[in-house]
Amino acid sequence: MGTVDAMSSHGEYLKEIEVNIIDRKLVVVEEEPENIRAIKASVKVLLEGLGEDSNREGLIKTPLRVAKALLDGTRGYKQNVNDIVQGALFPEAGLDNAVGYAGGAGGLVVVRDLNLFSICESCLLPFQVKCHVGYIPSEERVVGLSKLSRVADVFAKRLQSPQRLADEVCSGLQSGIRPDGVAVVLQCWHIHSPEVEINCTSPHSLSSKQDIQGWEKILVSSSSGILENQNGDFWVDFTSLLKFRGVDVEKARTQPSINRYWCPYRHLHASCNGHSTPEGNPLIHRAPCKTESPLYAMQNAVSMMIQSLGDDPSRKELLGTPHRFVQWLMNYKKCDLESHMKMNGGGSVQVQDEFWSELNIPLQSLCEHHLLPFHGMVHVGYFHSKGAEPIKRSTLQSIVNFFGCKLQVQERLSRQIAETISLILGGDIMVVVEANHICMISRGIEKVGSSTATIAALGRFSNGPTAKATFLHSISNATSA
Amino acid sequence: MGTVDAMSSHGEYLKEIEVNIIDRKLVVVEEEPENIRAIKASVKVLLEGLGEDSNREGLIKTPLRVAKALLDGTRGYKQNVNDIVQGALFPEAGLDNAVGYAGGAGGLVVVRDLNLFSICESCLLPFQVKCHVGYIPSEERVVGLSKLSRVADVFAKRLQSPQRLADEVCSGLQSGIRPDGVAVVLQCWHIHSPEVEINCTSPHSLSSKQDIQGWEKILVSSSSGILENQNGDFWVDFTSLLKFRGVDVEKARTQPSINRYWCPYRHLHASCNGHSTPEGNPLIHRAPCKTESPLYAMQNAVSMMIQSLGDDPSRKELLGTPHRFVQWLMNYKKCDLESHMKMNGGGSVQVQDEFWSELNIPLQSLCEHHLLPFHGMVHVGYFHSKGAEPIKRSTLQSIVNFFGCKLQVQERLSRQIAETISLILGGDIMVVVEANHICMISRGIEKVGSSTATIAALGRFSNGPTAKATFLHSISNATSA
Repeated sequence: MGTVDAMSSHGEYLKEIEVNIIDRKLVVVEEEPENIRAIKASVKVLLEGLGEDSNREGLIKTPLRVAKALLDGTRGYKQNVNDIVQGALFPEAGLDNAVGYAGGAGGLVVVRDLNLFSICESCLLPFQVKCHVGYIPSEERVVGLSKLSRVADVFAKRLQSPQRLADEVCSGLQSGIRPDGVAVVLQCWHIHSPEVEINCTSPHSLSSKQDIQGWEKILVSSSSGILENQNGDFWVDFTSLLKFRGVDVEKARTQPSINRYWCPYRHLHASCNGHSTPEGNPLIHRAPCKTESPLYAMQNAVSMMIQSLGDDPSRKELLGTPHRFVQWLMNYKKCDLESHMKMNGGGSVQVQDEFWSELNIPLQSLCEHHLLPFHGMVHVGYFHSKGAEPIKRSTLQSIVNFFGCKLQVQERLSRQIAETISLILGGDIMVVVEANHICMISRGIEKVGSSTATIAALGRFSNGPTAKATFLHSISNATSA
Repeated sequence: MGTVDAMSSHGEYLKEIEVNIIDRKLVVVEEEPENIRAIKASVKVLLEGLGEDSNREGLIKTPLRVAKALLDGTRGYKQNVNDIVQGALFPEAGLDNAVGYAGGAGGLVVVRDLNLFSICESCLLPFQVKCHVGYIPSEERVVGLSKLSRVADVFAKRLQSPQRLADEVCSGLQSGIRPDGVAVVLQCWHIHSPEVEINCTSPHSLSSKQDIQGWEKILVSSSSGILENQNGDFWVDFTSLLKFRGVDVEKARTQPSINRYWCPYRHLHASCNGHSTPEGNPLIHRAPCKTESPLYAMQNAVSMMIQSLGDDPSRKELLGTPHRFVQWLMNYKKCDLESHMKMNGGGSVQVQDEFWSELNIPLQSLCEHHLLPFHGMVHVGYFHSKGAEPIKRSTLQSIVNFFGCKLQVQERLSRQIAETISLILGGDIMVVVEANHICMISRGIEKVGSSTATIAALGRFSNGPTAKATFLHSISNATSA
């Protein structure tokens, strides 16, 4: 056995691998790459900080899944624009005997509505991007259309803020394809919920500012070359073509800028893990958590994660990130039902005859397989004695929040909500949960728009079709209304 | 140098590779895989059959691009369901002291609106799929949600028909995760245009049935286990959850079945490349093209391609495919402007003062980089003498068809349309082309919904902002109307 360097036949250096030749078999000794090992160790610290047993079956592979997803989500650190556009610049004649712009000689080319995902450098949560890219060909050369998307993705797959992402895509294309000008407009959506101190010790603390379905939205732009003058003709052409698709750049511009603080977690104060803060005085921020506290260990773990992804945790924009990420994550700390939840009823078994439903109760939770949020609506159907007061919506919301605010899978969440409500209202309960899982859209499979529904049906709802059908019908009516 | 087999440290067999150790460097001898080589050779035959020079710069890498795209689009032949679901089955408790279905004990789980792409086995063009999958967990085990999407994709990435795809996804999930039941509903869209004999020798032959924007649509379903009874309660739950997302399975059912012939090319008669046909008499079908004809060589090349992708060209459903694919492709045969196009005007230079526009002229063409269709709308703006007759829409449509019916890039197409119209109407012409490129959505990057716009601006449209702005504004008004 020995360690040798591997090269491709084109002389390209591959990597140092350990090999062993036994019986004419080349045995490649696979070691887990150092960055995966480091991220897995960090995720274990986070799971334990949440009070979870990182060895239980549902969680045992979570560190590896998170590591792979994060490395995939930041693969852009290892890519560069020239590799992508090389060989994808095609000669394309300009005009023959005519005055104007067309083809390879200045005819504007725009690709609109590219769906991308990026990771917010302030809080490490994914944000969604609709990217619009335009350029003005020069020297009778055009670039393959898909390369505009691939180049944008190189920069999206890093820890980013919207404006920097726009600037980097723009300058990457300008230097990679050397056109007469480049324009980039990004619409970005950031998952929302910071005002919601969903804390399992106080399930009633939902603030009225909560808007789980609504995401923070921002529009940013960047341009270079002859598109740099955003009062010029070419910029007007570009924005006109976006307007055909319902994107009004000028209108978005006139709205007050929320750029700097678009990340809803941005206001949380900076790191307490000993790194100096933008204000330059680490002592001020050390106070909230001591070095021996689990929070301190969790924040250090997040710093390690950032480093393993290929970014610099001491970069100014990242200084507060470990603190913010951990603060967000601690919303989902494990806690016991018994010690925190005070039920106002229980085990009522009398026949209850009136059908009631409570629809569209907002839900936010955290997928235990990927440590990424899922969010949506819960619909509850039940039977109740004629004349009795129906259960309060706020009580149902508390139950949903209580089970949402921990590591979850949607199937379990649906069952737990149904079982808990049945303690209050008796055994005839049906719960439908509809949710969007960020893990379905921000990783490799990128299934934008997919949505998961689960059903838990107890008692009368499980025995006969009528009650179930009535309830499903009531949801359908409410949804299409 | 020697050939050795490579094994990973887990003992998994990798592949036979040629290696050479020089100066402690392991040199891996890279050879182009046989299937890529074979597909490249086939694509060259097709390009030459279209009358193109396969060595011109825009086409020189087309065979490799097509080979990679096709292999990526059919990667499912090399995947299997068990590899995907292995390790992704999680224990999930059923109900605690209650009667009903929930969690790991029969609580229906549905993932809706998964966007996939597949390749039509009848004509080799891609078709778009919106996939809805449900299953009923058994034995207190649930599967990671993203696996439902990954398993569906294994079967989508093959040469398919909608019904077989639904059946294979269903049985793949049934045997892979062994739940109490599986249900699959697919909405499929097939690119359309077969009635449109867009033939460059007769640019006026557009049939009135043409509906370039409209795609053929079909809804199919498949189910197993306790979901098999499509009159049963569980099936009703499943379809109710789809109805929340606007998918009405029952309504689609009552419409007349177009299943067998959903591919618009399906009616074209079968192969003339010597393979026996479903009717069993190869002689009948040999008549139309002789073995020495270029069409025969092209069809053989397509058969070779199918074989290299890992399917069997003599499989019943594939027998007519080479013939159909070549017949479709020949719509885009190269031809000269001069020999076929009779212009009714030319080079008029007087000042023309009235602004005219003709919007939303349908376009269909073939991307020369990937041999995949792109389709959309052309908008034309021009100046014309007061009182004179405007150019006929049918003339503009002919020009668009003429330049659409060959291998193209959108930038060139825009320029050629503008230049040609300027021969008829003088030098003040603007052309905006908006198109969806199938190559942007059916390959690796899968940017569903992206759309490319290009501008060619001649004469007065290029000199000052007013004419251009007026024209862009008129498109904007028409689009939002």
